[in-house]
Amino acid sequence: MKRGIQQYDVGDVFDDYLLIKSASKGMTSTGKPFMTLILQDHTGDIEAKLWDSSPEDERLYLPEHIVKVTGDITSYRGKSQLKVKQIRLTNDQDGVNVHDFVETAPIPQEEMIEVITQAMFEMENPNIQRITRHLVKKHQRAFLDYPAATKNHHDFVSGLAYHVVSMLRLAKSIAQLYPTLDKDLLYAGVILHDLGKTRELSGPVAPSYTIEGNLLGHITMMVEEIKEAAQELGIEGEEVVILQHMVLSHHSKAEWGSPKPPLVREAEILHYIDNIDAKMNMMDRALSKVAPGEYTERVFALDNRSFYKPLFEKSESVQSNS
Amino acid sequence: MKRGIQQYDVGDVFDDYLLIKSASKGMTSTGKPFMTLILQDHTGDIEAKLWDSSPEDERLYLPEHIVKVTGDITSYRGKSQLKVKQIRLTNDQDGVNVHDFVETAPIPQEEMIEVITQAMFEMENPNIQRITRHLVKKHQRAFLDYPAATKNHHDFVSGLAYHVVSMLRLAKSIAQLYPTLDKDLLYAGVILHDLGKTRELSGPVAPSYTIEGNLLGHITMMVEEIKEAAQELGIEGEEVVILQHMVLSHHSKAEWGSPKPPLVREAEILHYIDNIDAKMNMMDRALSKVAPGEYTERVFALDNRSFYKPLFEKSESVQSNS
Amino acid sequence: MKRGIQQYDVGDVFDDYLLIKSASKGMTSTGKPFMTLILQDHTGDIEAKLWDSSPEDERLYLPEHIVKVTGDITSYRGKSQLKVKQIRLTNDQDGVNVHDFVETAPIPQEEMIEVITQAMFEMENPNIQRITRHLVKKHQRAFLDYPAATKNHHDFVSGLAYHVVSMLRLAKSIAQLYPTLDKDLLYAGVILHDLGKTRELSGPVAPSYTIEGNLLGHITMMVEEIKEAAQELGIEGEEVVILQHMVLSHHSKAEWGSPKPPLVREAEILHYIDNIDAKMNMMDRALSKVAPGEYTERVFALDNRSFYKPLFEKSESVQSNS
Amino acid sequence: MKRGIQQYDVGDVFDDYLLIKSASKGMTSTGKPFMTLILQDHTGDIEAKLWDSSPEDERLYLPEHIVKVTGDITSYRGKSQLKVKQIRLTNDQDGVNVHDFVETAPIPQEEMIEVITQAMFEMENPNIQRITRHLVKKHQRAFLDYPAATKNHHDFVSGLAYHVVSMLRLAKSIAQLYPTLDKDLLYAGVILHDLGKTRELSGPVAPSYTIEGNLLGHITMMVEEIKEAAQELGIEGEEVVILQHMVLSHHSKAEWGSPKPPLVREAEILHYIDNIDAKMNMMDRALSKVAPGEYTERVFALDNRSFYKPLFEKSESVQSNS
Amino acid sequence: MKRGIQQYDVGDVFDDYLLIKSASKGMTSTGKPFMTLILQDHTGDIEAKLWDSSPEDERLYLPEHIVKVTGDITSYRGKSQLKVKQIRLTNDQDGVNVHDFVETAPIPQEEMIEVITQAMFEMENPNIQRITRHLVKKHQRAFLDYPAATKNHHDFVSGLAYHVVSMLRLAKSIAQLYPTLDKDLLYAGVILHDLGKTRELSGPVAPSYTIEGNLLGHITMMVEEIKEAAQELGIEGEEVVILQHMVLSHHSKAEWGSPKPPLVREAEILHYIDNIDAKMNMMDRALSKVAPGEYTERVFALDNRSFYKPLFEKSESVQSNS
Amino acid sequence: MKRGIQQYDVGDVFDDYLLIKSASKGMTSTGKPFMTLILQDHTGDIEAKLWDSSPEDERLYLPEHIVKVTGDITSYRGKSQLKVKQIRLTNDQDGVNVHDFVETAPIPQEEMIEVITQAMFEMENPNIQRITRHLVKKHQRAFLDYPAATKNHHDFVSGLAYHVVSMLRLAKSIAQLYPTLDKDLLYAGVILHDLGKTRELSGPVAPSYTIEGNLLGHITMMVEEIKEAAQELGIEGEEVVILQHMVLSHHSKAEWGSPKPPLVREAEILHYIDNIDAKMNMMDRALSKVAPGEYTERVFALDNRSFYKPLFEKSESVQSNS
Repeated sequence: MKRGIQQYDVGDVFDDYLLIKSASKGMTSTGKPFMTLILQDHTGDIEAKLWDSSPEDERLYLPEHIVKVTGDITSYRGKSQLKVKQIRLTNDQDGVNVHDFVETAPIPQEEMIEVITQAMFEMENPNIQRITRHLVKKHQRAFLDYPAATKNHHDFVSGLAYHVVSMLRLAKSIAQLYPTLDKDLLYAGVILHDLGKTRELSGPVAPSYTIEGNLLGHITMMVEEIKEAAQELGIEGEEVVILQHMVLSHHSKAEWGSPKPPLVREAEILHYIDNIDAKMNMMDRALSKVAPGEYTERVFALDNRSFYKPLFEKSESVQSNS
Repeated sequence: MKRGIQQYDVGDVFDDYLLIKSASKGMTSTGKPFMTLILQDHTGDIEAKLWDSSPEDERLYLPEHIVKVTGDITSYRGKSQLKVKQIRLTNDQDGVNVHDFVETAPIPQEEMIEVITQAMFEMENPNIQRITRHLVKKHQRAFLDYPAATKNHHDFVSGLAYHVVSMLRLAKSIAQLYPTLDKDLLYAGVILHDLGKTRELSGPVAPSYTIEGNLLGHITMMVEEIKEAAQELGIEGEEVVILQHMVLSHHSKAEWGSPKPPLVREAEILHYIDNIDAKMNMMDRALSKVAPGEYTERVFALDNRSFYKPLFEKSESVQSNS
Repeated sequence: MKRGIQQYDVGDVFDDYLLIKSASKGMTSTGKPFMTLILQDHTGDIEAKLWDSSPEDERLYLPEHIVKVTGDITSYRGKSQLKVKQIRLTNDQDGVNVHDFVETAPIPQEEMIEVITQAMFEMENPNIQRITRHLVKKHQRAFLDYPAATKNHHDFVSGLAYHVVSMLRLAKSIAQLYPTLDKDLLYAGVILHDLGKTRELSGPVAPSYTIEGNLLGHITMMVEEIKEAAQELGIEGEEVVILQHMVLSHHSKAEWGSPKPPLVREAEILHYIDNIDAKMNMMDRALSKVAPGEYTERVFALDNRSFYKPLFEKSESVQSNS
Repeated sequence: MKRGIQQYDVGDVFDDYLLIKSASKGMTSTGKPFMTLILQDHTGDIEAKLWDSSPEDERLYLPEHIVKVTGDITSYRGKSQLKVKQIRLTNDQDGVNVHDFVETAPIPQEEMIEVITQAMFEMENPNIQRITRHLVKKHQRAFLDYPAATKNHHDFVSGLAYHVVSMLRLAKSIAQLYPTLDKDLLYAGVILHDLGKTRELSGPVAPSYTIEGNLLGHITMMVEEIKEAAQELGIEGEEVVILQHMVLSHHSKAEWGSPKPPLVREAEILHYIDNIDAKMNMMDRALSKVAPGEYTERVFALDNRSFYKPLFEKSESVQSNS
Repeated sequence: MKRGIQQYDVGDVFDDYLLIKSASKGMTSTGKPFMTLILQDHTGDIEAKLWDSSPEDERLYLPEHIVKVTGDITSYRGKSQLKVKQIRLTNDQDGVNVHDFVETAPIPQEEMIEVITQAMFEMENPNIQRITRHLVKKHQRAFLDYPAATKNHHDFVSGLAYHVVSMLRLAKSIAQLYPTLDKDLLYAGVILHDLGKTRELSGPVAPSYTIEGNLLGHITMMVEEIKEAAQELGIEGEEVVILQHMVLSHHSKAEWGSPKPPLVREAEILHYIDNIDAKMNMMDRALSKVAPGEYTERVFALDNRSFYKPLFEKSESVQSNS
Repeated sequence: MKRGIQQYDVGDVFDDYLLIKSASKGMTSTGKPFMTLILQDHTGDIEAKLWDSSPEDERLYLPEHIVKVTGDITSYRGKSQLKVKQIRLTNDQDGVNVHDFVETAPIPQEEMIEVITQAMFEMENPNIQRITRHLVKKHQRAFLDYPAATKNHHDFVSGLAYHVVSMLRLAKSIAQLYPTLDKDLLYAGVILHDLGKTRELSGPVAPSYTIEGNLLGHITMMVEEIKEAAQELGIEGEEVVILQHMVLSHHSKAEWGSPKPPLVREAEILHYIDNIDAKMNMMDRALSKVAPGEYTERVFALDNRSFYKPLFEKSESVQSNS
């Protein structure tokens, strides 16, 4: 596999294609214009400086375009930086595709949808099953493409579905160990808990928050959609309000965004399953970058902790998103 | 007006009709059965003891029944208590009606609905107006009958509508003083903010929480209904999400039950209007029971404070619920 | 199986053996002496009143004795109470044994020690394995007998081992789903995390806190013992400090008793495994007492929540401690 | 009206008079001296850079002087900056006055003092009236000139009086709607609540904190002055301590600076009136800078929220400080 | 010395004089009147029950009267209780005096005033010295008689002066060890810090809060008096505001009642001296009641902790208030 | 005494020896390399810029080396900076020693060990004395060399011992004033409380955290060592657990790092002694840099407060570390 931007060291010369993630212009202390570009490939991103940029440059180099760049890898405040020497937009002859430059879940979408479909198939309560199927079908395209968040954990293409798939596997194990748990409720909760993200976020790549995402939030939106689904399907049992409650309470505490705490056994456990999977994703990602005997960088979403990788840990062959 | 239960002092003999608010049985330390009844009229309630009660008594004296009681007003741990000597259920000949025994808003329902209708009439934005009208109409009966809460403030028949009417008057004043406020949004927010209580609570008299009230809460339920109303009415503008946000954020902070803080000017002000009216209701109720130079009992919902009535305050003729 | 004290209703006559859990004397408001006994069998306990008790009674009826009691089940403040009519200490002829009156884990000790032994057997890191084995062996008797806590969760004979066994099963599942986790560390953390309780608590039945338990706590004591074990075994690798850290950080936050938060991946996950098992135990216990459509009593250690059992839940045949 | 500094865009050439708000010197990374000036007119301020400044420049360009500046509007880190090309101090021939360069309340001082005088005139309690009048008279000059704060809300010339005037209008409305409120107390509380700012802050323009302002705070200083005023006027009734309490408690909670919470009805309402007016000022200011469909910048004093202006809002003609 | 009420055990017969601290009437569950009296001598107090009390009893047995009582020491809910058999008011023939029944500081007032006078004498800064002297003189009677609090620590006659004397001794030691401390400021801070209690509390025996004590607090009142004293004495230096700040900030944090935190070195240390002396008083009092190897009862003002007295502690001969 | 780096002003030329505390490389916005060095002598440190640095420079100028530097003192963002003109490593001919460039305690080590030895000599309880002596002896070298912290207070060579010596003097005074305190326990607590820092930190100069320091913390490590010491010495009394508790609880609250709060009288007082000495050190250091009438810079570890030095304070001749 080709060397990714993350594998370059200070002093190296870079000469390859990259996707523009964001672009902004600035002025040096001596009054000269320049551009700051965040450029990425599937392994990560780097800040690039295009000194003495022209208005033409500012017009051309916009987010979501792919560029061919030549430059030097330097260091600024302890982080790598790419000092651009040559840059141009790509065209059809370059034969490059945006999908090659974004991080994506390590499992193919077909496999993920199969796991999800299987979980729904195993449900015995028809009301729970029908509502879940209805909503998965309604949002299927976005469900498979969207990230689970704009940052922190599973913030890559198909991150949402990948998070759900991991959680389903965990839910299955836990439901076997604790037979009082209602498997159907737990699976439905896992599948629906973050589905509102497909409306809260603007899209699968470099997402921002939508207006309704910002004013209402994904939890409220999905609670609402469960009701709508039930009405469309003519379902009236207590399953409806319980499913709404599962989604509503999955952040566990009011200060974390759930106006009601879990009041049903499966809702409490859903919160833990969500946490374990999100935290494993964040810890694995941070620890995969360091060697035994080292600390990770601080991880803001894990209370700003810096994790230690013990000396006796076998070096990981495990990779990327997991 | 007839003397109410609140006006009796220790040592008085009571002989009148009262409504049973709640009933429970107990056993004395020497093993004898008795009943504890909470009996009320329009002025308040009193704990009553029916010593040496029979199984027959337990079968007869149930909540929401009216009884004719004779007994002595005594004192127990600093609170008045009624020691029952004679008690019987009322019948048609007694000519008593449950409505004579419950506390109710000091303004007639007709006048309240008129104020609310007028506010809706003044709205200029047709989307806001139609959604508000639709929901008021849908819940009108309960809107006019329900209390605003099970305790703390406006916890009496028609308390919800009375609270809304007071808030509308305050909203009108504030909108005139601060012309940047969108009057339509503010009025709609006032009218809809607690309308979900009609589903959260079980009824107008001695309400408890419904299952969905407990698992979802009145805020989430009304946010959902605004969306439904818009769909039924075929309304699609940004007004829908803004109205939902007004209701969603009116508790102001996550730890007080709003998963999103106010992010729109009118939502911020709605929160203050709600607070001023609720607090005035609680303070007035507590202060109306004490003389100048005295402190009120501690009011739990006001951070457990005990308010002082200055010596130079004119004695209040103001009464009851206000 | 014989009817347990938990299965009696108000109005029933009780006539059977019970274990005295605690005993205290009192005086009625009219100056007459009485005794309050907490009496228990394997299904739970009940408060009993022995009116007009004599000094002889006070001398005889002491904790940990078994008595033969006849009396009526009454109700006081919503809780069942046993009004004692006849009571006497048991003797050899009664053929009763203290073990028949205490709640105990639903799995035999042999099975539990087998699961624990198997987990230690599977460890590949010899340092971790030897320290864990050493400490399990050192405390084996108490480990198998002690409760996991004085109240809240797993507060019964063998509760500690039962809690560890459930956690080991969960740890095994999670380690399989997330291969970056060091299975050895996770198993050792599960086995040792609460082992200090065998010094913090005074014994398996009706435990109180020891002086050192109160002044140092089970976490500090086990951290200390891991070091001692390593010294005795001549082990010096980083495994020692990592194991100490696993125990030290398993309460996750300073305000919950861990002076250091988890800084190693397995420590973070240990905290979640501990939580899921403890919470499932508490929720199951509370929910097993109510029917579908009902709420449980408030559970203090679960943020004082009252859980709801959905109407569509199949009625549980699952029992007692699980 | 002339274009103010706030109306210039990046790329424009600026050539006009500005007031120096603050001045500091620096050195570029290559060792060359420069000056950073904050320059303001009545519409706001801008950071200006004077590259290659001389010691003479540093001597001349001091705060509170007016300069004639020519330069280019550039952008640095998303904020406008003025790159100075020519600069000179103004002299009498320029015919400019410091008052033309500071933001000031949108109502003339005469009108403000009239509203305040009228409120005092309407007071019926002579003790409250005399103390209020005495203190307004004592601090009248500063009362009319000072800002209400150094930043956040009403931080402009006459901001304090303007804030009080708005609050008085709101107090009047509320007192009419809730007749149990003592109008005299409420008005006096409004007028006196922040009067201590005239000693806490150093002056009307670009104020800093005085030593006693920092060590005691405006609340403590005004509580003290109410007592002094009463002594000078020979007033002894309970009004004195109640007025002191109104000022002392108007921040509502200990952590916000009030050692006692409101314990009198009017003190509680004073806190809300203060909040509504301060928040309306902050929200209006932030929202006046954005178009419908946009978010404001984050407002630190409003819990760092970013407010949304709905698409259906009529564009505001409302202006300036209100 | 005569046996005090604290030295009686359950089962003993009591026959001696006691002071009525508080009196209230009640009714038994069977409707019979009784009185509850809190009776005290210099060693502590006890709850007494006067069964079947008459209206005459209620008229006679009022707080601050001394009674001759005969009765039995019984136990109720783990606390001693006195069941009154005979009771009468005392008269001149009894030869008893209220001062013999109240707890008081262990040092005579003359000695205490001498220590305080000496500290003032040692002050070198005349402004600090004169203000301190003026205020001590103004409140001298109450300063020597009042308790330092209504409960928790130094809650006995002369408790305030005793607390100040202990703090002065500690201040002297600390000032010697840390020569950068301004001795004069520190001594003045110690002497004045709680002097406002003489206005906050109603009197030396069984004090309650005065209206101004409740609405303003002792801190605000003393800050005000320092200013008044300076004005009367014609003192204008910065010492005035610094002394006010010492008193204002001595609770250290806003949530503990100080609107400004210590911003002067001596103010910070004053807070610690106050804490050490108050906590030593509370710990000594609680620990003096238990034997080595025992825990004290929970002390609410010490974060509800229960302190342990080590087995190797020499048994204390130290006594009572210290 | 030679002028230290702290005594230089902007505009001065510097030409002297300095110790490199840290070194990092950077690149200017125009792509030129430079080095940032933190250089220190016994009076403090300064940031130095070495423009146009070569790879050779980066290889040579490493932490803990002494350099001879010539350059100009300039100012950057309000802080002094040294613009390096000439720099070279020192050699034997320069006759400079690393000890001349580090801040160190103001008392010689011999005097400090004497005070500590004397305190141990005065102990009467042989168990406490022997454990303390054993641990002091075990860590003596580091005890006398290490700082008490990496920053905030006593962060200089021998800072730990100096902090202990000051605390011992304070402990002695307090033990005399409060005779119920067990002097032996208090002295032992003072001596041992931070001794674990000798394992938590990496060394006496420019210390960082060790792995075990980070994962366990100095408190846990010293608690463990007390147990080990007792075992080696064959001591078994309750003194062992009490000494462990003294160290364990000396941070007072869970959120400050003590899993158990002080539950023994001397533990509570130890916490206060530690605080007073640490805070005096921080306040003195900050206040020694400002003149009367000025504020100190904000001190992060003192809740970010800025302290005021009153105008009437005598100018301090007191110096450096005290």
